[in-house]
Amino acid sequence: MKIIIAGAGAMGSRFGLMLHQAGNDVIFVDGWPEHIEAIRKNGLVADFNGEVVTAKIPIYPQTEVASIDFTADLVILFTKAMQLAGMLEALEHFLNKNTKVLCLLNGIGHEDIIKKYVPYENILLGNTMWTAGLEGPGKVKLFGNGSIDLQNLGAQSEQAAEAVIKVLNNAGLNARYSENILSSIYKKACVNGTMNGLCTLLDCNMADFGETEQADQIVQQIVNEFLAVAEAEQVTLDKQAVLQQIRSCYNRETIGLHHPSMYQDLITNHRLTEIDYINGAIVRKGKVYGIATPYCQFLTELIHCKENLLHAK
Amino acid sequence: MKIIIAGAGAMGSRFGLMLHQAGNDVIFVDGWPEHIEAIRKNGLVADFNGEVVTAKIPIYPQTEVASIDFTADLVILFTKAMQLAGMLEALEHFLNKNTKVLCLLNGIGHEDIIKKYVPYENILLGNTMWTAGLEGPGKVKLFGNGSIDLQNLGAQSEQAAEAVIKVLNNAGLNARYSENILSSIYKKACVNGTMNGLCTLLDCNMADFGETEQADQIVQQIVNEFLAVAEAEQVTLDKQAVLQQIRSCYNRETIGLHHPSMYQDLITNHRLTEIDYINGAIVRKGKVYGIATPYCQFLTELIHCKENLLHAK
Repeated sequence: MKIIIAGAGAMGSRFGLMLHQAGNDVIFVDGWPEHIEAIRKNGLVADFNGEVVTAKIPIYPQTEVASIDFTADLVILFTKAMQLAGMLEALEHFLNKNTKVLCLLNGIGHEDIIKKYVPYENILLGNTMWTAGLEGPGKVKLFGNGSIDLQNLGAQSEQAAEAVIKVLNNAGLNARYSENILSSIYKKACVNGTMNGLCTLLDCNMADFGETEQADQIVQQIVNEFLAVAEAEQVTLDKQAVLQQIRSCYNRETIGLHHPSMYQDLITNHRLTEIDYINGAIVRKGKVYGIATPYCQFLTELIHCKENLLHAK
Repeated sequence: MKIIIAGAGAMGSRFGLMLHQAGNDVIFVDGWPEHIEAIRKNGLVADFNGEVVTAKIPIYPQTEVASIDFTADLVILFTKAMQLAGMLEALEHFLNKNTKVLCLLNGIGHEDIIKKYVPYENILLGNTMWTAGLEGPGKVKLFGNGSIDLQNLGAQSEQAAEAVIKVLNNAGLNARYSENILSSIYKKACVNGTMNGLCTLLDCNMADFGETEQADQIVQQIVNEFLAVAEAEQVTLDKQAVLQQIRSCYNRETIGLHHPSMYQDLITNHRLTEIDYINGAIVRKGKVYGIATPYCQFLTELIHCKENLLHAK
């Protein structure tokens, strides 16, 4: 299968590498010049479960793809949320009426952007539990196991989803069909919508946040806003299961001592965050449905303040 | 006049010193052992507009006042908000039916605590624009000019207020009668209720906060909650004047480069904050009046989280 990985960060690199190893025709499109240069020079270098693997996978800067002759069967979107529209614009000429587009971005509401570029019946939404770490330009660290749930957005497109699942499974990516992908996406967004913003703002890891007296009260207020918007979109979520998943982040024996990705983006690397596509998306959707979302709004504003203060780019 | 300064921090020291210099019989009551020891040994040492002044003013720890024979005409309250009830309990035996109690604490709603210990007609509320800095145990720095507005809480007690104003003015403290002290107190609380919590949480000075794109939006949301509660309490505030006073804090030429006192308390010195008596008071009063105060609530919770994370005491 001819596959474009749009966004060759840590996770894009994992998917690209595993799909390439399984015999697919994979190309990367990315926006980070040093990363592109390193991969072109040395290939993608991965510490893959302890073994060093090097793969020569073509990689193109987003700004130079117009001249490439490549008809994609599948595009997997792995950009940062704020780069999504720009990437889709750059990739438009690769897409034909059969090209499937699988969105694996964090956050909610990306389909509203994608559908401007891709026919509804070709859009697949997914949620992945795989992890990956970027160690520097051209270098990734891939450990452990994961899975992907995905579903077609168009009512009649189960077949398209199943075909993509088959390709992913042939590459060992452990994909399965979801009857309710929006529910998984919202659930994950609830975790990100609490842990990311709060630990970034409070400058702490997830375990330390979870042990503050106020953690539960704050988390419940934010989750209530996510659930109210989800309900308005006919997405069913079990509040107790959501809270349980959030609380599992506090565990010092597992992931509690980690800082969430937003913390690393903003506090460590002074990069703009994806808050507008997590809590900010709830605020926008809340306005449409007439639902008050003050906690999500204040948190979004505070994170933007912090971006301003740190001159994040 | 026999005066107890309850809380001999920077501002209490200023008032105590100036009233002592004007010939009043002043004693300090405080809770900080090193400060008490230093003042007992060396007197209160003040850099008073560039001149070093030493004053031998009696000072007692709050825990040992029971045995002192002193009938106070006036008690001026300068404790931290969370120490107010404990201080009033300790001072109860000094108060007779004529003792006036002037509250100059920051924050709102202190009268609800004071009236448990002091007859309503003896309570005076004030708002001061004086400044002062504590340089270490027994040492203060007093620069510049200021003023005090004050008013009796009881409807028939103007005379009591006027008598206290006279004593304060004899000491150069520039006091004047206010027809609407709650309005000034609320206005000051709006400034503290935005600058204090936000700069503490965002780890920035007031000018840097003011220059973020989100500052105005956040400030307006918080001020709206203060104004709604003030209105329910029949306290009239001019929103534009409040906003203007807050925006004046952003000025780099004047006070913009300073961190607010809460920042110094919590971030620099890991001390508990007075957030419960500023934004937290709005939340409590909002519940009574059925007014939603989510920004004040979230900000209060986040500051408490930060106290927890820093093991503030």
